[in-house]
Amino acid sequence: MSFSFTVLGSSSALPTSTRNLSAYVLHIHERIFLLDCGEGTQIQLRKNKIKFGRLNHIFISHIHGDHSFGLFGLLSSFNLMGRKNDLHIYAPPELENILNIHFELFGIKLKYSLIFHRVNCNSSERIYEDKQVYVDSFPLVHRIPTCGYLFVEKEKPRSLKPEMIDLYSIPIDQRQGIKNGADFIKESGQIVPNNILTDDPPPGRSFAYCTDTRFHRGIVSKIKNIDLLFHESTYMDEDANLAKSNFHSTAREAAMIAKEAGVKKLILGHFSTRYKDLNLLLNEARKVFPESFLAEDGQMWNV
Amino acid sequence: MSFSFTVLGSSSALPTSTRNLSAYVLHIHERIFLLDCGEGTQIQLRKNKIKFGRLNHIFISHIHGDHSFGLFGLLSSFNLMGRKNDLHIYAPPELENILNIHFELFGIKLKYSLIFHRVNCNSSERIYEDKQVYVDSFPLVHRIPTCGYLFVEKEKPRSLKPEMIDLYSIPIDQRQGIKNGADFIKESGQIVPNNILTDDPPPGRSFAYCTDTRFHRGIVSKIKNIDLLFHESTYMDEDANLAKSNFHSTAREAAMIAKEAGVKKLILGHFSTRYKDLNLLLNEARKVFPESFLAEDGQMWNV
Repeated sequence: MSFSFTVLGSSSALPTSTRNLSAYVLHIHERIFLLDCGEGTQIQLRKNKIKFGRLNHIFISHIHGDHSFGLFGLLSSFNLMGRKNDLHIYAPPELENILNIHFELFGIKLKYSLIFHRVNCNSSERIYEDKQVYVDSFPLVHRIPTCGYLFVEKEKPRSLKPEMIDLYSIPIDQRQGIKNGADFIKESGQIVPNNILTDDPPPGRSFAYCTDTRFHRGIVSKIKNIDLLFHESTYMDEDANLAKSNFHSTAREAAMIAKEAGVKKLILGHFSTRYKDLNLLLNEARKVFPESFLAEDGQMWNV
Repeated sequence: MSFSFTVLGSSSALPTSTRNLSAYVLHIHERIFLLDCGEGTQIQLRKNKIKFGRLNHIFISHIHGDHSFGLFGLLSSFNLMGRKNDLHIYAPPELENILNIHFELFGIKLKYSLIFHRVNCNSSERIYEDKQVYVDSFPLVHRIPTCGYLFVEKEKPRSLKPEMIDLYSIPIDQRQGIKNGADFIKESGQIVPNNILTDDPPPGRSFAYCTDTRFHRGIVSKIKNIDLLFHESTYMDEDANLAKSNFHSTAREAAMIAKEAGVKKLILGHFSTRYKDLNLLLNEARKVFPESFLAEDGQMWNV
């Protein structure tokens, strides 16, 4: 089952000719989750051939324009395209009012239901859950209320070994129970323990999205041992003071978070346009956490 | 001196992977005029290497999102880039309030002066004038108040023939007067008429921008004999009823306007995304007006 992370826009405040404003897509099984929606997101969705019809959930980290101005166009386009599905937006509460005023000013009447979920960026909350995935929010430290988002694939049933089905002639109607952890009781009354019959399921995969934020150790406990971490790295180490005063992180700080949390892989993004060679940021991160990589627009990472 | 028209976004309501939302640039001498500002305009400006610093005048045809949502990002980016120059926006009056509310909702404080010029789309007005160019607005017919814009290069002084300067030994201090139309009076009192001394100046070049609009003959008198006309052509002839009910034009209708106005060249744009092959629209236009061409994003036309 798919679990991938696609970069639509990896620049910070200003776009460049090769890097768009913040927007990322998670494909988890059949679902498409959009993370942030900077200007141009609907164009990037098209260029990356992501199906609008399967996009039902948008998560906004914070209400700065480079993370949210693309909503105006995207929500209008859904309307023009005859969208019928509900659209869920998870964001700091202030965005709801902004969207309503915007629709009113432009005389836009949505023909689909927009369901707004007010996320409290001061605490951790379970904000989404279905059969296969759950999403938790957690606080980041930025100039305005900002949320990180953790996406976790739920554990699957145990895997029943085919050779054991044959050996014990396990009836079909008992197999699901065994996958869920039951032992098998033979007609003779003999008990075959579950651990002989099954393998452990693959662990649920996990991803976290942390932007924008100052270096903040409070993140670490929320993202322990996850598979893939996206963490902003707006600045190089020589601009650490700028990072601090602008409530952003350096690449090295992002790597420190990744290392302390024991994540498997780190994607750096939200780059300041001041750096010609982003490999300098990458090198600073890799000194702390070797499994660091640069986000590139259009790139997909399997989780 | 330059006078060119660059296409940044030629799609109608929805962008495609190759056509962005409405935005066009006029270079006239050293000036850059932006026509409309759909989502993604600031990205298109960068991709087309258009200098933000020389862009001081933005003309908005009407307040539909596909022609204006890019203003939010562009005006914010000017702020982040430390813009100091005044920025002039010419648009239907309602946009001023929308921008002010938007800045307030997002806590944006502009560090440059934004000078808003309220254009009355019910009449023709001279809305801009400098030494070399003037701009007139005129009414279009769309669902909401919409303006067309006519850009005209002013006539230059007459051209003084070098051989006449020698023949009559015309003193330097009299040459400008002759370029402005004066006769030359020799010391003997003999009058040499201006038409012997000078050539006609090249005529002022002209361009008009007509989008969005239903087929409307009232445009014709405003754009008589201009060099280049951009006219929307959202639909093919088979969808003429749709064009009418949606207050848009067909390619054939755009060509009829061009023909009746005696313009030199017509650029078609603002295409509906329903047509796979836009040459069908082009052919319909060329049957009426052979000098018709399709707008393509990134393309520049000399006026």
